[in-house]
Amino acid sequence: MKVRVGVNGFGTIGKRIASAITLFPEFSLEGIVKRTPDYAAFQAASKGFKIYAPTNDDAAKLEEAGVKVAGTIEDLLNRVDVIVDATPGGTGAKYKPLYEKHGVRAVYQGGEKPDVARVSFSSLCNYREAFDAESVRVVSCNTTGLLRIICTLQEHFGVRKVRATIVRRAADPKEVKRGPVNAIVLNPPKLPSHHARDVNTVLPWLDIWTSALVVPTTLMHVHSLYIVLETAPSREKIVKALREAPRIMLVQSGTTGIKSTAELVEAAREVRHRYDIPELVVFEDSIHTDKGELVLTQAVHQESIVVPENIDALKAMFRLEEDPGKAIRDTDNRLGLTKTLW
Amino acid sequence: MKVRVGVNGFGTIGKRIASAITLFPEFSLEGIVKRTPDYAAFQAASKGFKIYAPTNDDAAKLEEAGVKVAGTIEDLLNRVDVIVDATPGGTGAKYKPLYEKHGVRAVYQGGEKPDVARVSFSSLCNYREAFDAESVRVVSCNTTGLLRIICTLQEHFGVRKVRATIVRRAADPKEVKRGPVNAIVLNPPKLPSHHARDVNTVLPWLDIWTSALVVPTTLMHVHSLYIVLETAPSREKIVKALREAPRIMLVQSGTTGIKSTAELVEAAREVRHRYDIPELVVFEDSIHTDKGELVLTQAVHQESIVVPENIDALKAMFRLEEDPGKAIRDTDNRLGLTKTLW
Repeated sequence: MKVRVGVNGFGTIGKRIASAITLFPEFSLEGIVKRTPDYAAFQAASKGFKIYAPTNDDAAKLEEAGVKVAGTIEDLLNRVDVIVDATPGGTGAKYKPLYEKHGVRAVYQGGEKPDVARVSFSSLCNYREAFDAESVRVVSCNTTGLLRIICTLQEHFGVRKVRATIVRRAADPKEVKRGPVNAIVLNPPKLPSHHARDVNTVLPWLDIWTSALVVPTTLMHVHSLYIVLETAPSREKIVKALREAPRIMLVQSGTTGIKSTAELVEAAREVRHRYDIPELVVFEDSIHTDKGELVLTQAVHQESIVVPENIDALKAMFRLEEDPGKAIRDTDNRLGLTKTLW
Repeated sequence: MKVRVGVNGFGTIGKRIASAITLFPEFSLEGIVKRTPDYAAFQAASKGFKIYAPTNDDAAKLEEAGVKVAGTIEDLLNRVDVIVDATPGGTGAKYKPLYEKHGVRAVYQGGEKPDVARVSFSSLCNYREAFDAESVRVVSCNTTGLLRIICTLQEHFGVRKVRATIVRRAADPKEVKRGPVNAIVLNPPKLPSHHARDVNTVLPWLDIWTSALVVPTTLMHVHSLYIVLETAPSREKIVKALREAPRIMLVQSGTTGIKSTAELVEAAREVRHRYDIPELVVFEDSIHTDKGELVLTQAVHQESIVVPENIDALKAMFRLEEDPGKAIRDTDNRLGLTKTLW
């Protein structure tokens, strides 16, 4: 019996999750919910995805534009075991009563408040906590990036304290109405930023402060991390642990010429669909350690990094795989995560 | 007897220092050295500055373009007690033998290696170390910004450790050949960045790591700082110390709407020549402290922040004022540094 999945929302995240679900034999993608008749709707139809509309009005507009509609979201909810909510931040909470009315489980994204779901989720940290959950919230792209490195280091060396500055991309590549164009924006001005609290939804015990700045670029976020470990491993040991960790890609700058998000994305364009980089990219040359303290720089592809975690969340909720390591390895293999871009 | 000063280089920094010198009765600006016949040369002439050329060839080209030339740099060196070298990074070291041949003291900029001068200088930290020095190096804009906050905090609370991420503007506003346009660049990829070593040229005892990223903006640098103090003052005490410190401007975001470099510069355009902000701007809302640890965000106007320190360096080298506090207050008053932009 396949787990029947619907995806509500077909934006940056939703369209990636929908495509990803089709790669896993344990899931069947029953359909996606799309409001606006636009190029993304045409592409969804062209891929053979069944398209549902939020309302009958939306359905009429889609049909008018030539997009075949299979029904409304309520029709989709009657056909699925679980819905992945990939609607804009805060919208998932509004849909929650509808999902519950239909007795459908839900995976929410990090744009929702933590109380939308029973558990905030990040595969490398708390896979098992999602077992049998009616609802799970996959934390945001930046929080996912932070948690991947933190939980990997925690497993090997223990983590006592994290101080992180998040340099955020201003807009996704497709967005034409966002800025800044020429500024560095404190977002938020008041510190610590909410990213620290979001990490604490998964790791409540962690001493973490975060600061966030928005800058005029679209490609990726970059994190500057200062971490105090519980032990004092050598640089070699840290590099080895990260190299062998799932879902992390170490990139050397000196030997590859990749020392920016632009060069990283240029390399990904050659080998990746949509140039997605769902791996957390840690710049190997940046890793420096002394007396149990560690500094490093990492890059987060905001459009795709949470896709593997969404797949894992589905696996955990339905206990399709109880071993986190096996679940993660399988997800990574099917999604094509690798250790280099060549 | 006035101290006779020349300025070699009339770029972003040189033109500001030349203008600044004319505001101080203890100095006479004997002339500036300019190579290229361009709008900046016409403006220098229009201000009544005597223009010297690096070589006779350059002089001929300037004259050809209609710029009156008073002689070559050697003629200027024969007329001054001290030269402020504001040539491009690394060029000052090449001029050094010429300055020495003419028995002229020199102030270098932070683009030179520390060994170019006897002392690396930042007014709030080590004013007295420049007394009677033949040569002084005023540290770079980012290092000046770091040292202003560190030495202010050191004076009041003691500073044990600094972890700083520097988000650098890609180019100055006038530059048309630099990037990045759409990327975050690790500059350098290897950590800690040289900024930490540069801070250590002034404060050798300090435990400091820095990380630096270049982003597509021209207005200002922004620093994200995590500082461990020797004591555990309240937030109110820290805010008070910074509010009363010279050369630092505290800016509230919530009450003023200034939460980015763009809004800061927009406010400065209303009240400042060239919209210069030689103050270090600390975003007050960002100041957060717990158990002697402090996080804050600050902005550095790369074009003008080192101007007051250059003036102070001249004062210290010639012992025109032996009290650092008095020297700094006088510099700030004459240059028009303030505590708000209204």
